[in-house]
Amino acid sequence: MQIISRDKVIYRFSPANPPVATVSPGEEFWVETRDCYSGQIKSAKDLRPHIDTSIMNAATGPIAIAGARPGDVLCVEIREIELAGYGIMPTNPGLGPLGERITAADTKIIPIEGGFAHFSPAIRLPLAPMVGVLGVAPPDGKIPCVTPGDHGANMDTTDIKAGSRVYLPVFVPGANLAVADLHACMGDGELSGTGIEIAGRVRLAAMLVSGLALAGPVVETEAAFLVVASGPEFRETARTAIARAADLIGKALAAPFPDAYRLVSAACDLKISQIVNPLLTVRVAIPKYLMPRLV
Amino acid sequence: MQIISRDKVIYRFSPANPPVATVSPGEEFWVETRDCYSGQIKSAKDLRPHIDTSIMNAATGPIAIAGARPGDVLCVEIREIELAGYGIMPTNPGLGPLGERITAADTKIIPIEGGFAHFSPAIRLPLAPMVGVLGVAPPDGKIPCVTPGDHGANMDTTDIKAGSRVYLPVFVPGANLAVADLHACMGDGELSGTGIEIAGRVRLAAMLVSGLALAGPVVETEAAFLVVASGPEFRETARTAIARAADLIGKALAAPFPDAYRLVSAACDLKISQIVNPLLTVRVAIPKYLMPRLV
Repeated sequence: MQIISRDKVIYRFSPANPPVATVSPGEEFWVETRDCYSGQIKSAKDLRPHIDTSIMNAATGPIAIAGARPGDVLCVEIREIELAGYGIMPTNPGLGPLGERITAADTKIIPIEGGFAHFSPAIRLPLAPMVGVLGVAPPDGKIPCVTPGDHGANMDTTDIKAGSRVYLPVFVPGANLAVADLHACMGDGELSGTGIEIAGRVRLAAMLVSGLALAGPVVETEAAFLVVASGPEFRETARTAIARAADLIGKALAAPFPDAYRLVSAACDLKISQIVNPLLTVRVAIPKYLMPRLV
Repeated sequence: MQIISRDKVIYRFSPANPPVATVSPGEEFWVETRDCYSGQIKSAKDLRPHIDTSIMNAATGPIAIAGARPGDVLCVEIREIELAGYGIMPTNPGLGPLGERITAADTKIIPIEGGFAHFSPAIRLPLAPMVGVLGVAPPDGKIPCVTPGDHGANMDTTDIKAGSRVYLPVFVPGANLAVADLHACMGDGELSGTGIEIAGRVRLAAMLVSGLALAGPVVETEAAFLVVASGPEFRETARTAIARAADLIGKALAAPFPDAYRLVSAACDLKISQIVNPLLTVRVAIPKYLMPRLV
């Protein structure tokens, strides 16, 4: 099985990045990932103000999927997530929505063992491993890996976990997938600016889907399809996700717009993915009992 | 058992409203509620532009809780929700975040039967009955029932359902509880501007808790405590809920602020309640494995 090394990274998603590996549709492969600080924080003495933030969220890849063409949809199946032995939660003044209440930089190292993140001797959190960064090359430009968008990237969406699928529009030949930024666990919102940041590796397979027209990412879990949108401002970003969800429902159920809109309201949840990246990310969960298949 | 009639309603939460009934702490009682249109929409011919919106969200009450004093916390336990036989989903141009795509007013009547809302012959939604409006008299002013706030009211929070408890600060002697606006089901966000709006009745008991200092509503479910905040703008409202959640966790676990902030980020979800009322409402879910009791 191919193992894509964490030595091969990009700092920006761009059509200009040459692929470092090629996989066939359906082929299983491992992607090793750095933690979001690119391994610069190894102990409680390594503080966030001392690190080089220009290499944060370095994403392993890009990985070409043989035969992928612009206009296809890439379906990335997350088969397994393996975590390193410890995670990291640095804080510093100004980080996150309550950052003004942090008076000094401070790094916490959190051992991972027996299914738990051992936050302190008295407090342990159940692991909920997830992938923070997963994206494809955008049609143009150079988008820092820290920034989410319609090409995916730093969506920090807790549903991107083992057993889930991520659907992404393909903008360039090969799609050029890159992956980074695992979390041992994270609440919706990533409210202090970090999850439990951790290195690791992810077992994936990527399939090509034709006949789907997606404007941006959709995540599939056992129970729902989640329409993901990112933007600078909450209401407009929510509106994008709601409109895309209503249009998917309308198409799947052959429902006129007012009924699709009502069904979004009665049965779908607007959820927060993260509010701490350069663009915020939300998602609308369409339950599968309402829409069993993506159309 | 006392049954508080839906003939006895308020249109604004205010300390000036005299109570229409008094219950003892722990006493079980029923509150009958109108649908949010005060029963003005009875068929598909009754369109939203024709109704008197000044009597929307009429809340049954106020109900005094004997012995409640300013500074106490009221704990309202939702024991049972009974729904009427049909729900209502009107739309009209301009309603909700995609309201510009609605070209004509249109009312949908949705039969409720056998545990489902029968949206159409082909589409049925599982019932998830919830209470949209539940609040106490604020310390001053007259706040329309449609507007949520630290006194509760139109929080449109899906966790306010049978089996849950709502904790509210008491601002006036007797607390003066009022209840309205049931939904047969609703997704987080209330994204078209309505849930499946419905009349019904709610079986409640209200207890008094001393020694708690709450600035605003907290909802308790089987799995979590949810800190609710409402405001005009998303980021600032989220910040209020996050700060209150971090302070509760810090107090419960005797954790310094940076650790409480990390725990909010690693284990708590920022969730959307509604984005369609005069103020939007969010909540932060603190899992009970982290904080078993409200302190």
